[in-house]
Amino acid sequence: MHSDIQKSVYKDTISPLISAVFKGVSQVIFIENAFTGLLITIAIMFSSVSLGIIALLSSLIAVLVGKLGGANRTLINQGLLGYNSVLAGVAISLNLQGGTRFVIAMAGAVVAALFTCAIMQLMEHLNVPALTFPFIILTWFLLLASYRLGVFRLNPNLTPQDLSHLDLHFEGTMNWIEGTVSGVGQVFFQDTFWSGILILIGIFWAGWKLGLYAVLGSVVAMLTAYFLGAEVSMLNSGLYGFNAVLTMLAVGVVFDAKSRFAPITGIIAAIVSVPVTASVTTWMMPYGLPTLTMPFVLSTWLFLAARKALPNI
Amino acid sequence: MHSDIQKSVYKDTISPLISAVFKGVSQVIFIENAFTGLLITIAIMFSSVSLGIIALLSSLIAVLVGKLGGANRTLINQGLLGYNSVLAGVAISLNLQGGTRFVIAMAGAVVAALFTCAIMQLMEHLNVPALTFPFIILTWFLLLASYRLGVFRLNPNLTPQDLSHLDLHFEGTMNWIEGTVSGVGQVFFQDTFWSGILILIGIFWAGWKLGLYAVLGSVVAMLTAYFLGAEVSMLNSGLYGFNAVLTMLAVGVVFDAKSRFAPITGIIAAIVSVPVTASVTTWMMPYGLPTLTMPFVLSTWLFLAARKALPNI
Amino acid sequence: MHSDIQKSVYKDTISPLISAVFKGVSQVIFIENAFTGLLITIAIMFSSVSLGIIALLSSLIAVLVGKLGGANRTLINQGLLGYNSVLAGVAISLNLQGGTRFVIAMAGAVVAALFTCAIMQLMEHLNVPALTFPFIILTWFLLLASYRLGVFRLNPNLTPQDLSHLDLHFEGTMNWIEGTVSGVGQVFFQDTFWSGILILIGIFWAGWKLGLYAVLGSVVAMLTAYFLGAEVSMLNSGLYGFNAVLTMLAVGVVFDAKSRFAPITGIIAAIVSVPVTASVTTWMMPYGLPTLTMPFVLSTWLFLAARKALPNI
Repeated sequence: MHSDIQKSVYKDTISPLISAVFKGVSQVIFIENAFTGLLITIAIMFSSVSLGIIALLSSLIAVLVGKLGGANRTLINQGLLGYNSVLAGVAISLNLQGGTRFVIAMAGAVVAALFTCAIMQLMEHLNVPALTFPFIILTWFLLLASYRLGVFRLNPNLTPQDLSHLDLHFEGTMNWIEGTVSGVGQVFFQDTFWSGILILIGIFWAGWKLGLYAVLGSVVAMLTAYFLGAEVSMLNSGLYGFNAVLTMLAVGVVFDAKSRFAPITGIIAAIVSVPVTASVTTWMMPYGLPTLTMPFVLSTWLFLAARKALPNI
Repeated sequence: MHSDIQKSVYKDTISPLISAVFKGVSQVIFIENAFTGLLITIAIMFSSVSLGIIALLSSLIAVLVGKLGGANRTLINQGLLGYNSVLAGVAISLNLQGGTRFVIAMAGAVVAALFTCAIMQLMEHLNVPALTFPFIILTWFLLLASYRLGVFRLNPNLTPQDLSHLDLHFEGTMNWIEGTVSGVGQVFFQDTFWSGILILIGIFWAGWKLGLYAVLGSVVAMLTAYFLGAEVSMLNSGLYGFNAVLTMLAVGVVFDAKSRFAPITGIIAAIVSVPVTASVTTWMMPYGLPTLTMPFVLSTWLFLAARKALPNI
Repeated sequence: MHSDIQKSVYKDTISPLISAVFKGVSQVIFIENAFTGLLITIAIMFSSVSLGIIALLSSLIAVLVGKLGGANRTLINQGLLGYNSVLAGVAISLNLQGGTRFVIAMAGAVVAALFTCAIMQLMEHLNVPALTFPFIILTWFLLLASYRLGVFRLNPNLTPQDLSHLDLHFEGTMNWIEGTVSGVGQVFFQDTFWSGILILIGIFWAGWKLGLYAVLGSVVAMLTAYFLGAEVSMLNSGLYGFNAVLTMLAVGVVFDAKSRFAPITGIIAAIVSVPVTASVTTWMMPYGLPTLTMPFVLSTWLFLAARKALPNI
């Protein structure tokens, strides 16, 4: 009997909890698959074990916020409350310094979960998904706050730059393979080759079509950015790719992709995300803020909303 | 007979007009109470008689705009068309210089009333209140306009600052009592002790619970900002407090606060408003714009929208 | 028979296509009239033949995007899908340099058409028109992108300016007639007298009332900007006027102008658009971006949304 109760507690509470936590990680890339989430977590741990733990804790926090707050159970179990918290937790840990940053990251994960609920609610009428908008705004605000609050210590990489005195480096040797893989890895802020490969395996595990589109999105971004004359260093580290990967998946496969031309629309959307990445990067420069996934959010909203008036795309 | 007609004119026209004008002042802090409005007006007159008159004239202008425009009578009589005009009139008078600023303030009050109607209309579907959003955007735009229009003379305190050359002062002696009282007073741009006390009396007059929450909001802001390492001078003059006071009242008591955990949610929202205050302050620095009540608006929208998906908070 | 088929092809396909293309040009100024579109195109060709061709090609591209995408036929035929593409194509050609800018302009026209569909869809619930919002955001983003992409070469006129070191020129001789005419011409980026006159003739052709309001809007802007102390050079080249002209027409005549006070509301809206022009100009200065028609969009949204709550205005 005792062991039966244990089993049932495991089956009813712990197992769905663990599943929801890992799905929170995989939902960053539109996948509801705990094993994919596990592979991605391992990929993050390649570069930093503590960062992987932060990702899981952030996802767990979102699940708890959802449960305590009385959110829709399906949303919680699908990991849809958690992906913004995962990204916020990781991004805050990477962009701040000092031991307090982990506490701030956890607090950020709480607010990200609330923010996700809020934006889902506010955008319900628009029939357009919230995507990673809450994560982006939250992270930008937290980084801005660090200019006025002594406890928040900004990573010195993030320096505000005046547009009239830009210092760009267009020269360099293209590294097509690494750039393409990093374009996938950067979705989770990973720019090392093997982390990217592992994340890619996770995506292929959830569906070969998704994996193929992810690679295609990254290749499209590399080519577009190359021909538009982007900085080679940004290309090689996948900084133009990750927004294109997400845009390609969102527009080409995931959301409302009923038309047979949806894959082509996805490619066009991925191409558009490249100049949008350049724009958002410029826009944020006077504030020293990272671009994050804003180009993906804007490009995807554009094409998903347009699709409602243009059923063939 | 003659005196009867006079009485009836008074009862039907002048009395509700005066009531609406003072309620326009009290609605800044979510209170529909003419006497509270009167106390707040006196508190403003403590620091400047003309500023108090501006507040009342702005409120009157909003009522007239509503009446001429054919707005819903209940909205007008509750002072809900006026609070943005009151804040705009006062903020413009304080942030511009020269005699023309009073004319600009009155024109600003007209536009603030129109803007309030517009935002109420646009946000109807979202089931989230307009709050002081119209006042903030209007005031920011007017101050920005002063860089290009000779007649608008900006207060020299408002200097654009480059984020890469910040000059902050973290040292100083905390003044907990004055800071807490100023946190309430700053809702109406008042940083003197007795003005704050009088405004607080006005709030308690409308309901002891509101008064208690206002004080609690200000204390929460002081503590949070202190532990996050905010500038002491900003803390002592209540500049972190007023957004927390408004957020606490809005989330904890006023809007949709049905859950028994609403007061706790209010406290959390007040805490969140502190880093948001730091963020908005940084965001506006390159433009030399004051933060105003934007942190309150953003924090309150966040929690009110989240509450729709999380009924327990 | 052969000639009959030819005629029918012409009548069914080519004629409505040509009509839709020219209406795309005239819809910039709320007019559905192919001949007005033709006159405006000629006016643009006065200053640059290639620019006129760009305008027509951009309009054609929008029609094709609509047809391929399966958009509502009425929208396409009325030119409502095209006006943002026309403006985007022209603005991109004017604000970038080098031969590649024409390719970028055409790509911009495609995205502008998609963006127009998207915004129409997203704003449906709000009962407020999309206006030229898609054009503005698209053009700003493209210009921002040029800071990071070598292929995009920004016109050197567009230099980011620090608000703390502004260099304004208030002195100069007012040129009332030219300023007023340019205020109309600048709707299509034309600041020469005869282009403005020809555009004005096009507007009068579509309706004398529209022509009259356009002139009135420009005069109101000149007077308001003059008394508010605007830079004379900006006034003389119509840079305060074109937003007022569009605002006057939109609020005073075109959208929901049922009240008999609508013309007066239009005048007030045109007056308000002047400080808003100053504000947006300041706001964009650190990014070196042109103001475009954002002041018109913001002022018009303000008054159209307010009108829903204030039926008399």
